[in-house]
Amino acid sequence: MSAAPEIDETHDPARRSWVAAERDDAADFPLQNLPFGRFLAPGAARARLGVAIGDGVLDLAAAVQAGVLPGLSSALHAACGSETLNAMMGLPPAELRALRRALFAALAQGSRHEAAARPCVLPRHGVQLLLPAEVRNYTDFYTSLHHAGTSGALMRPGSPLPPNFHHLPMAYHGRASSVSVSGTDLHRPCGLVADGDGAVFTPTRKLDFECEVAVWVGAGNRLGERVPLAQAGDHVFGIGLLNDWSARDVQRFEAQPLGPFLGKSFLTSVSAWIVTLQALAPYRVAAAPRVPGAPALSPHLDDELDRRFGGLDLQLEVLLSSARMREAGLAPVTLARPHFREQYWTVFQMLAHHTSNGCNLLPGDLLGSGTVSGAAEHERGCLLEILRDGQASFELPSGERRGWLHDGDELTLRATCRADGRVPIGWGNCTGRVLPARA
Amino acid sequence: MSAAPEIDETHDPARRSWVAAERDDAADFPLQNLPFGRFLAPGAARARLGVAIGDGVLDLAAAVQAGVLPGLSSALHAACGSETLNAMMGLPPAELRALRRALFAALAQGSRHEAAARPCVLPRHGVQLLLPAEVRNYTDFYTSLHHAGTSGALMRPGSPLPPNFHHLPMAYHGRASSVSVSGTDLHRPCGLVADGDGAVFTPTRKLDFECEVAVWVGAGNRLGERVPLAQAGDHVFGIGLLNDWSARDVQRFEAQPLGPFLGKSFLTSVSAWIVTLQALAPYRVAAAPRVPGAPALSPHLDDELDRRFGGLDLQLEVLLSSARMREAGLAPVTLARPHFREQYWTVFQMLAHHTSNGCNLLPGDLLGSGTVSGAAEHERGCLLEILRDGQASFELPSGERRGWLHDGDELTLRATCRADGRVPIGWGNCTGRVLPARA
Repeated sequence: MSAAPEIDETHDPARRSWVAAERDDAADFPLQNLPFGRFLAPGAARARLGVAIGDGVLDLAAAVQAGVLPGLSSALHAACGSETLNAMMGLPPAELRALRRALFAALAQGSRHEAAARPCVLPRHGVQLLLPAEVRNYTDFYTSLHHAGTSGALMRPGSPLPPNFHHLPMAYHGRASSVSVSGTDLHRPCGLVADGDGAVFTPTRKLDFECEVAVWVGAGNRLGERVPLAQAGDHVFGIGLLNDWSARDVQRFEAQPLGPFLGKSFLTSVSAWIVTLQALAPYRVAAAPRVPGAPALSPHLDDELDRRFGGLDLQLEVLLSSARMREAGLAPVTLARPHFREQYWTVFQMLAHHTSNGCNLLPGDLLGSGTVSGAAEHERGCLLEILRDGQASFELPSGERRGWLHDGDELTLRATCRADGRVPIGWGNCTGRVLPARA
Repeated sequence: MSAAPEIDETHDPARRSWVAAERDDAADFPLQNLPFGRFLAPGAARARLGVAIGDGVLDLAAAVQAGVLPGLSSALHAACGSETLNAMMGLPPAELRALRRALFAALAQGSRHEAAARPCVLPRHGVQLLLPAEVRNYTDFYTSLHHAGTSGALMRPGSPLPPNFHHLPMAYHGRASSVSVSGTDLHRPCGLVADGDGAVFTPTRKLDFECEVAVWVGAGNRLGERVPLAQAGDHVFGIGLLNDWSARDVQRFEAQPLGPFLGKSFLTSVSAWIVTLQALAPYRVAAAPRVPGAPALSPHLDDELDRRFGGLDLQLEVLLSSARMREAGLAPVTLARPHFREQYWTVFQMLAHHTSNGCNLLPGDLLGSGTVSGAAEHERGCLLEILRDGQASFELPSGERRGWLHDGDELTLRATCRADGRVPIGWGNCTGRVLPARA
């Protein structure tokens, strides 16, 4: 945490940008959002950093050069010209707030910088979006009470909710190299799965998604030094969407006692856009309540401001389309609408706990929330829960039955943050399509 | 694997270097070794790459500039001038063999390059050794049958050897950011540990080491593409030593069902020197035999050359000294002497299995073997096994009793490869000292 979320003129719902906002996903990117990403312009060889606005993307290096972001530090100028977001992520929150104010001023209607900034805005549909930062380390948490209870009962019938679930935000190290930007397709992975009393190496028969929220780490901490929960907010750069693709049969055969490995490491998809913690200030809510009878929080996980503002009013949506649906011109179906405000541990508790043993975090490290699931049927954030591990199935508008994901299926995560009297903001799509297994 | 190990003139036991070899650890670094590392020269601001030889370290960039490594490709020249080993690691094995031959020729007695090369060799005791490469991803395996059986029985009395142990080289993702070079001391980590029916946040009471072999990945593979076992050797740059420091009480409280996390991520120590796969050719031996009744190997883990040459005749040694021992001038005691040739899965099987789901490896990725333990009492590679989880203790030459590691204890790993008619080679020390917990 660090302090109550700061709402300022950059959240003013009355303001609009001069950048056009007519295309489908423009509603995700109003002036109050200003999320960061990374892109290749048409024909360019070098990646550039950008900010999504309406139908466009502001080229940050060009904007600095054009003088439309005046008054920034030399560190910010250098970071805006970098090829990845890592340098910017490592800057102190005060610097990032200054950049946000400058971006808001340049892109708002009536800005004196409009003429100079206009050539710096490219049509977003014309650029190739890239992984926003070099992911140095990726950690996946397991912080939804509903997901842990439901999936635990399916994967480990004897002990559904791990006994330590209420004591700490559980997590495991994930694979950083296979974290990829939205739009990266995946070949159905192969692996060893149970086969009678033995095992067989086969393309997975239980391909699943997991709908998660991504925390992008900002300023790091030194090896051996803890980040207190009260300062955790100073180390969060922003929030993205994350699909933790999972091969359930591979995972089940390999995962005890060392945890998930090849059942997950073939691909993890993240949204191209990262919404900063500053942008999210209006949507911060109280942390989800502890369940009755839960043990007292360890001091390193207990902070009054975290209880009051540690949650986030973020509505997720999971969409599926099959190849046949797309051929027939049918719209994707909504598989689930889980809500992140119910997550049992806050992103700040995740980060503080991660450093509680002195583990060093680096700018650009990625923390997954774990599957976000609610109590209701339509709030289940993965097929393992929706299908009750394959006992159920559902019908698509094309008439196809669906259990686990088929080749040709395309899975999309979307999300919106809303608050009374505020402009809703979003992330665009986090998408991936399943291709057949490679020989 | 890829092919039988190639022994050539660079392994000739009759040859000697013109570099002096009089200091303690010079015997680890004869002309036939030529391991790679990274260092800061006295007063220098920029890291340089080096090769350990006798008492010295050859400055690779200086050697290239002095013209003592003629005939190398421009890619090799660029890699020798880089600040980390990652670029060199990504080069094809044929390039690395060419570099090895050039280094051997320059450093051998009678070399026509001796005069030009002499100023490029610095005294090794005068430089600061750094982490050899940027560790992009770290995976820790669990491939010793004896360690899995013994530690499994202590950590999970109901199910000592996991049922999948004989099917695949088990592993989990480790933490890359806290991998540090030998000589990095550690503050005793804190964490949540079981306390009656609840938990308490405390400095660990069960600090342990794990004696492991490190595999440094060379050339990578693309996301979605498998590395066949028959080609795995083309993706191994070299071998190092690794101490997987562990807080057993933290690990036990957190690790089910997602695997080790904060019980390990506070520090992982690696040796400063990486011995290349080319240098290790004479010490390659048959893989350890499968146990009777073990299931047939999955095709992706089965290769005839791997069975014949997948093992490595590498003798490890674990040494401990307490603060009181060092004050009294007492030499470290040997805690264990495990042997890597008994490891149940080969390093090539580990690498091939890691990519079997399409997971991409990057140059500089690190694979730990897991604790190396043998069947005998003196071959147990961690205190968990030596102490039988705290039921036993032992006496130091200073008269102190030892269970888990105390503040002030210094743990050192060493190793030697030997083969009939060949010069033994080693890695120097992989060391770390325990400092008190931070407040």
